[in-house]
Amino acid sequence: MIKVGIVGGTGYTGVELLRILSTHPQVQLTAITSRKEDGMPVADMFPSLRGRVNLAFSSPDNAKLTECDVVFFATPHGVAMAQARELLAAGVKVIDLAADFRLQDIDAFEKWYKMPHGCPDLLKEAAYGLVELNREAIKKARIVGNPGCYPTTMQLGFAPLLKAGVIDATHLIADCKSGVSGAGRKAEVATLFSEAGDNFKAYGVSGHRHLPETLERLSDMAKGKVGLIFTPHLTPMIRGMHSTLYARLTTEVDNAGLQKLYEDMYANEPFVDVMPFGSHPETRSTRASNMLRIALHRPDNGDTVVVLVVQDNLVKGASGQAVQCMNLMFGLDETTGLMHVPVLP
Amino acid sequence: MIKVGIVGGTGYTGVELLRILSTHPQVQLTAITSRKEDGMPVADMFPSLRGRVNLAFSSPDNAKLTECDVVFFATPHGVAMAQARELLAAGVKVIDLAADFRLQDIDAFEKWYKMPHGCPDLLKEAAYGLVELNREAIKKARIVGNPGCYPTTMQLGFAPLLKAGVIDATHLIADCKSGVSGAGRKAEVATLFSEAGDNFKAYGVSGHRHLPETLERLSDMAKGKVGLIFTPHLTPMIRGMHSTLYARLTTEVDNAGLQKLYEDMYANEPFVDVMPFGSHPETRSTRASNMLRIALHRPDNGDTVVVLVVQDNLVKGASGQAVQCMNLMFGLDETTGLMHVPVLP
Amino acid sequence: MIKVGIVGGTGYTGVELLRILSTHPQVQLTAITSRKEDGMPVADMFPSLRGRVNLAFSSPDNAKLTECDVVFFATPHGVAMAQARELLAAGVKVIDLAADFRLQDIDAFEKWYKMPHGCPDLLKEAAYGLVELNREAIKKARIVGNPGCYPTTMQLGFAPLLKAGVIDATHLIADCKSGVSGAGRKAEVATLFSEAGDNFKAYGVSGHRHLPETLERLSDMAKGKVGLIFTPHLTPMIRGMHSTLYARLTTEVDNAGLQKLYEDMYANEPFVDVMPFGSHPETRSTRASNMLRIALHRPDNGDTVVVLVVQDNLVKGASGQAVQCMNLMFGLDETTGLMHVPVLP
Amino acid sequence: MIKVGIVGGTGYTGVELLRILSTHPQVQLTAITSRKEDGMPVADMFPSLRGRVNLAFSSPDNAKLTECDVVFFATPHGVAMAQARELLAAGVKVIDLAADFRLQDIDAFEKWYKMPHGCPDLLKEAAYGLVELNREAIKKARIVGNPGCYPTTMQLGFAPLLKAGVIDATHLIADCKSGVSGAGRKAEVATLFSEAGDNFKAYGVSGHRHLPETLERLSDMAKGKVGLIFTPHLTPMIRGMHSTLYARLTTEVDNAGLQKLYEDMYANEPFVDVMPFGSHPETRSTRASNMLRIALHRPDNGDTVVVLVVQDNLVKGASGQAVQCMNLMFGLDETTGLMHVPVLP
Repeated sequence: MIKVGIVGGTGYTGVELLRILSTHPQVQLTAITSRKEDGMPVADMFPSLRGRVNLAFSSPDNAKLTECDVVFFATPHGVAMAQARELLAAGVKVIDLAADFRLQDIDAFEKWYKMPHGCPDLLKEAAYGLVELNREAIKKARIVGNPGCYPTTMQLGFAPLLKAGVIDATHLIADCKSGVSGAGRKAEVATLFSEAGDNFKAYGVSGHRHLPETLERLSDMAKGKVGLIFTPHLTPMIRGMHSTLYARLTTEVDNAGLQKLYEDMYANEPFVDVMPFGSHPETRSTRASNMLRIALHRPDNGDTVVVLVVQDNLVKGASGQAVQCMNLMFGLDETTGLMHVPVLP
Repeated sequence: MIKVGIVGGTGYTGVELLRILSTHPQVQLTAITSRKEDGMPVADMFPSLRGRVNLAFSSPDNAKLTECDVVFFATPHGVAMAQARELLAAGVKVIDLAADFRLQDIDAFEKWYKMPHGCPDLLKEAAYGLVELNREAIKKARIVGNPGCYPTTMQLGFAPLLKAGVIDATHLIADCKSGVSGAGRKAEVATLFSEAGDNFKAYGVSGHRHLPETLERLSDMAKGKVGLIFTPHLTPMIRGMHSTLYARLTTEVDNAGLQKLYEDMYANEPFVDVMPFGSHPETRSTRASNMLRIALHRPDNGDTVVVLVVQDNLVKGASGQAVQCMNLMFGLDETTGLMHVPVLP
Repeated sequence: MIKVGIVGGTGYTGVELLRILSTHPQVQLTAITSRKEDGMPVADMFPSLRGRVNLAFSSPDNAKLTECDVVFFATPHGVAMAQARELLAAGVKVIDLAADFRLQDIDAFEKWYKMPHGCPDLLKEAAYGLVELNREAIKKARIVGNPGCYPTTMQLGFAPLLKAGVIDATHLIADCKSGVSGAGRKAEVATLFSEAGDNFKAYGVSGHRHLPETLERLSDMAKGKVGLIFTPHLTPMIRGMHSTLYARLTTEVDNAGLQKLYEDMYANEPFVDVMPFGSHPETRSTRASNMLRIALHRPDNGDTVVVLVVQDNLVKGASGQAVQCMNLMFGLDETTGLMHVPVLP
Repeated sequence: MIKVGIVGGTGYTGVELLRILSTHPQVQLTAITSRKEDGMPVADMFPSLRGRVNLAFSSPDNAKLTECDVVFFATPHGVAMAQARELLAAGVKVIDLAADFRLQDIDAFEKWYKMPHGCPDLLKEAAYGLVELNREAIKKARIVGNPGCYPTTMQLGFAPLLKAGVIDATHLIADCKSGVSGAGRKAEVATLFSEAGDNFKAYGVSGHRHLPETLERLSDMAKGKVGLIFTPHLTPMIRGMHSTLYARLTTEVDNAGLQKLYEDMYANEPFVDVMPFGSHPETRSTRASNMLRIALHRPDNGDTVVVLVVQDNLVKGASGQAVQCMNLMFGLDETTGLMHVPVLP
């Protein structure tokens, strides 16, 4: 059994880790920390876990995290980098769901996250946790930087086109829509039910923290600098993310050829579903599961390809992906404990 | 492996059966019928099942239902009673999610459902599928009438008080609120998003079909005629049911004593959670799981007990409960394939 | 023109006052205070008011409230009582949307609101602002305590029965459901979209602040002590309130007679709509309007009357009602500026 | 007073016309037709109108539409064209909210709407009802083809850029999100609460009927053939539309210059609000009002302009715009009866 610790278990990625890990056949939940809720049974905060998770929150100081095999950080940016070194020294693997180990470009990190990076050496060895694009590195990693939710959809959606070199990589557009849970479980006016409900808006159009991470990765794929317009929107639903991606073909490829690029790349992927050409995937078709679905369109047979990508932002976009990484890091079948069927309706 | 057939797989209880049964370790999905969608892959209608359910709908005429071990009817009232005899004759067990085998009082059935009952003899042998109150009969049954969603909450909520004989059974009140999925997957104006969204209303206050079923069962518990005001309401959420029950004490019992009645009755029940006295259970704490939660209140220490009951109307209120019955009918552990952790948020 | 000041304009009752008053033909919006947002144009916080309200928030210290004809307090409990005396002395009328002037029983106020009452003498002269039940007093008042949202529905719903003396007033039940905006525009986890959405729960079952206010008023009507079980619930909609009231008849009245009690009492009321016997009013039929609708039921012709009451909690339940009071206090037609047609869908 | 008839008053654009027209100071509602609901009081179908609209639906055959001054068609495509000639002959003006008089290109109409056009001569004289771009023609028109909801946002959003000739008009992208009421009040599975709620999806990516109308108009502005990728999405909210438009600059214009293009064009428009550069308009800031708001962005100061446009799809996107046209056609101030303040929250 893998002994698992979770730092910061009171947010949405934390409770989603608990939902997934509490039925994972190879995991023993060992410690969940929260400075503020020290001593409170986890199931008192999240009654959905009554009878299923018997741990109490413990103070980060007392939690015996070094006795775990792996620790997940479901914390704000900056926490994991402060604690990773000690854990690694004790032989504990680290999976950070925040941004501390996502960006290899430290300047970009410091610019966008407005804090110095505490351990550039560890960053260098960290693996980026987007399994489908980085599986081998993750298997061997001690530290994983779990991708952002938006970047997961943008990378998996653009990858086949970029790797094939058939689009103009300097003018990509990603029009992305997220459910409100992506904003986290923080007391804020903007995400109140009466503010975010029955309402739709863009935000961060002039710059969002998921942009540099995505640019870094897409540029790797394109083997050159990529230009990307990224427009996130807040959607009145709890879970779910829908990214609508636009790219212009620079090489003539017919529709069957486009479809084949995707089917070939994701042929053996258990969590990426390439739907028939011209499909309209719904976010709910992935709800509470680790699936991500993709469909291609080519309006009027012109030179613009439209790629539709859906996932559950808390699962494939966060906690499920993190568990997928854990499975690889411990030599398990990648799908272990992750085969939830999406909840519909 | 239990070979399972589903008649009428295109509604919400049908797709929920598929979600649950597709990961049930002892089940082999064998046939799913829909006259209208004959030949269509199930996953084309419900993309959430892509890669997880590979069956296609078949016409009821051709589906080899008699080769199944058990057939679930997720159909309108009247269908199961027409087909049950033939299936039973072939040794197939029957679980009906509609009302055909719920009411022992045939007159009441014919009055409320406005159709003659096709097989009164089978009705007599049918077991009412509310496991916690009828477990032994279900184990031995060939036919189970799965309870309605509202009746499940009302019976489990009132049972400890009625069986203890401490309340006035002639004046019970059940103020119940259901998510919209309870109305089914039928094209109707009243349940459109733009009609049912951001809106709340009562319906059927002067009479709802779940009333006679509940009265029959509560009267059995009370060993006498019960009086019940039942007010159903439509709530702008997809899944979830919250019943607020009111009863007046006729015997002095203190709060600890009330709580003990519930804890004793449900002590060993895997799917009934008695929360601490004075709790406020949320519907989402049961979302997509087979759990039902109960909490007791006694305002101002007066003679009125308020019982709060929550469940997912599609799981414990329908398809999950049906699978719980199936497990018992086939000698399996009752929880097999039903230990989903509720999805929160 | 009536010069109007609003203290505390950043919450939902504040912005709703602004929506209503900005098109009121007899009102000149003169001052809106917010200590925190001093200097910020109101329309920067609420873009719905761009081009319609040109005021900026001003600090309470500098706002020339004493130059107004009337000041609305859309503030937390305790603020109005601290400022009322000075305003009244300057000849300014006061309408408080919080609880400072609702309860005549000072002990009850201090018990439920956990603060001493600052001006018992003013409380004595304050009129309770439920127009349909207290119109004459409001016309002459200098101070109005605007009713709570729940109490408005409970009082207008029970009044005809209580005044006619046909029910058992010692065992009333009010099962009430509110939209989330009733909780205000405060940053809190419990009312986040991802917490309150797709979810239903009771709260405050063991005691809610709207109980003593309601008991005081119902007891007046009943000319004797009333017993009331009041169960508030949080509903996943933004606006709207639905109260389901239960009472037992002590005198034989037939359905037509019951209906007549309501139609007679509310015959000339512009904002109370008695629907046909057996109707199911929807909250959205009052959305963004000052209407309150009532319908009666009598299940199985027994001795229990079920009264369904709907309103928009922010309008008839708060800001609309306050403007209705203002109209009366200044000798205007009661409906001036309040004839918005409900927004459906 | 203008005598108004409405053909097809049972859908959302119909009830929205009733909401607006019932308080319009110059309108006398004269006839509302529905073959199916002949004789039913309008307020029985829409209780929001109780006491405000006293008409009953009448059969189209009996409704004395020729006695009206203007008739609105809130009907499916094809109805207005069948009845317009007779009405015009009787001196009645016609405003069609469907597509019969939107497209000047008859081939395009017949291709996209799959029906022959019944009166090409009338089409030729019809004015396209997008007031801000076609005011003078509307003033003189006997027939108005009211624009589609999506086309309204796309035209008003792209117009300043196209007219200034500063963008590449051959590669425009419009990523549009609509509330569910845009799909109308038809009984359909796809727009049930339990299907469209908590869910997000694109639809019609390979071709939507609003495309040819938009192309025709944008090409006029650009004085040349325009290329447009138009991706509509269904959003889990009742009302509201958010269009995110992308265009590439071909001429260097700085941000102030871009902003000035919009502010100049819409300086005197009562229903178009150009927000400060870099704003993020919310759909709810226009809810239940005739306002449309626009904001500009230019990510990373590159060559892509992002234009955000919001409106209420049922008001500026449909019925409000139609009343705005009526006002012009009858020489009234354009804003008469249309100055509703948006409902927030």
